[in-house]
Amino acid sequence: MPPGSRLQFVETMLDRYKAVTMNALLALIPDKEPRRHLYELVPLYPQRSGKGLRPALCIATCGAFGGLTDRVIRSAVAIELFHNAFLVHDDLEDGSEYRRGQPTLHAVHGLPIAVNVGDAMNVLSIRPVMENLETLGPQLTWRVFSEIEHMAHQAVEGQAMELGWVRDNACDLTEEHYLRMTLKKTCWYTCIQPCRIGSLVATAGAIDPDRFNRFGYYMGAAFQIQDDILNLIGDARRYGKEVGGDIREGKRTLMLIHALNHCGPREKERMRRFLAKPRRRRSTDEVNWVYRVMRKYGSIDFARSCAHQLAGAALREFVVAYGDQPDSEHKRFIESLVLYMIERDL
Amino acid sequence: MPPGSRLQFVETMLDRYKAVTMNALLALIPDKEPRRHLYELVPLYPQRSGKGLRPALCIATCGAFGGLTDRVIRSAVAIELFHNAFLVHDDLEDGSEYRRGQPTLHAVHGLPIAVNVGDAMNVLSIRPVMENLETLGPQLTWRVFSEIEHMAHQAVEGQAMELGWVRDNACDLTEEHYLRMTLKKTCWYTCIQPCRIGSLVATAGAIDPDRFNRFGYYMGAAFQIQDDILNLIGDARRYGKEVGGDIREGKRTLMLIHALNHCGPREKERMRRFLAKPRRRRSTDEVNWVYRVMRKYGSIDFARSCAHQLAGAALREFVVAYGDQPDSEHKRFIESLVLYMIERDL
Repeated sequence: MPPGSRLQFVETMLDRYKAVTMNALLALIPDKEPRRHLYELVPLYPQRSGKGLRPALCIATCGAFGGLTDRVIRSAVAIELFHNAFLVHDDLEDGSEYRRGQPTLHAVHGLPIAVNVGDAMNVLSIRPVMENLETLGPQLTWRVFSEIEHMAHQAVEGQAMELGWVRDNACDLTEEHYLRMTLKKTCWYTCIQPCRIGSLVATAGAIDPDRFNRFGYYMGAAFQIQDDILNLIGDARRYGKEVGGDIREGKRTLMLIHALNHCGPREKERMRRFLAKPRRRRSTDEVNWVYRVMRKYGSIDFARSCAHQLAGAALREFVVAYGDQPDSEHKRFIESLVLYMIERDL
Repeated sequence: MPPGSRLQFVETMLDRYKAVTMNALLALIPDKEPRRHLYELVPLYPQRSGKGLRPALCIATCGAFGGLTDRVIRSAVAIELFHNAFLVHDDLEDGSEYRRGQPTLHAVHGLPIAVNVGDAMNVLSIRPVMENLETLGPQLTWRVFSEIEHMAHQAVEGQAMELGWVRDNACDLTEEHYLRMTLKKTCWYTCIQPCRIGSLVATAGAIDPDRFNRFGYYMGAAFQIQDDILNLIGDARRYGKEVGGDIREGKRTLMLIHALNHCGPREKERMRRFLAKPRRRRSTDEVNWVYRVMRKYGSIDFARSCAHQLAGAALREFVVAYGDQPDSEHKRFIESLVLYMIERDL
């Protein structure tokens, strides 16, 4: 498929998966007090123009293995709620100002309320998993629960690694550190677990879901690296976050790690001092200087090349994970999604 | 029982319940990376000198209804972990500086890491509830899960109410508002649900747990009001938080609400302006002035009298909730706990 039609196909399918997910998600939010400081804020992030990648992968994998959307929708919604709770807390942990083109929740409603809204989204994600009991029966419901519990563990561990690096001003990280953190923080809940859960639901637990681990890892890492590249070079209006925001946050992206490992000792020392400052004292001039160092040492091209290699590896693993399933729109969507991850510009 | 020996009996029993809870809780924390920014921080709050009230009530109620501690310990641990996660987030939402005599987690490790540690504690609380499956079987395990889910809902709703009042600078609240918020924020997870879960586990789901709702509500409200009184007049070293911290935070305690409703219009306007300031701009002189207004209008005596009435009501409800059970140490502990709630000075 040529890149243009692939993009269109993927986005059409994403819209379709998102519509069914949002329907079910919004129905979960209690229509009661406290509204203004809680339940009216819960749908704000999900309703913004996010791609809905995680529920899409979950529903599509279920479909590719012959399962009905109706059997997996509650699990997909739980994943999407968990993801949005994670974003709310991630934004305030990073001090981010924009998310999906609008001010972050804490920027508008204050930190205390944002922390609590994130907590509430996590609480709300429990109910749909419990409601699986009626359609999936006890054994499969427990299985899905375990998957979601594992996913949440990985995410907080990955987050702790990344926050710890900022806290300690770690300047001697390697690609391996980055990939291990990304596996935990991004890949498990963005790709691996959605595929595992979709296939478990479709096959009533008969599949070994480990077959998705490599596929989800490669695709998730490609996705995260592309996301970090877009933060550096993207169009702010399309991308929806402040461009260069990651540099200002001191986020240990693959580009930053590469630049730190390849620049001269004086540049490294200057980077280290820049990263040691509190975020609010990092000037735009300094952010631009770090960006120029990354350009100078080819860090962005290096990251782009890593993302391509990872996407290539994901395409090979796609055959292992999905090759034995008959052709379907769902299966084609997942295959197309791999290259979409690195071709997208938002 | 005279107050002195009651105090001693309650504290001996609390220590005993806490020892068994902490044992099980610490065993749950993964012995792996990331340690320094995650798993070493998880036990910090539970290990501080908290009373362990919630697991104690849960284990004691189970015992009073003839159940073994071993059957309920995992649920008790989940409640205690949830509580401590709530404290970590509550402290940063309120900007609190001390908790149980030591600096709050975010004061030492920074806000980002504290948010994530709270999230991790919530994630860790899922596992013991799932492990109930082996000992309690699927039906009862689901029942306990539903109870915990309900408890978490109530807590985030109560928290949203309280944070919303601070955010909106609400100055026209009534006792009813306060009690409704306390029911949600404190009573459900501190008293009602621990009793419900303890009795459900003991009777293998045969009991109607609604019998504990009034008892837990009255006792929980008495506990919360006493806690707020101690924050005003307690000995900081014994109490473990900064005395007067609630006034500085603008927390809508029963005393503040009473004072706002009984002071003169000029005092009320001055209070309103004080409460409209950001926390860091509220001076110690102003905090002391608010305290004097509370004294002047008898707000602290009023609150103390409310706490006593609530404790009296809880003692009457104790008969409804526990009266049909034979005498036991567990039962005596719970009865003694009611007055301990308002007699304690830490």
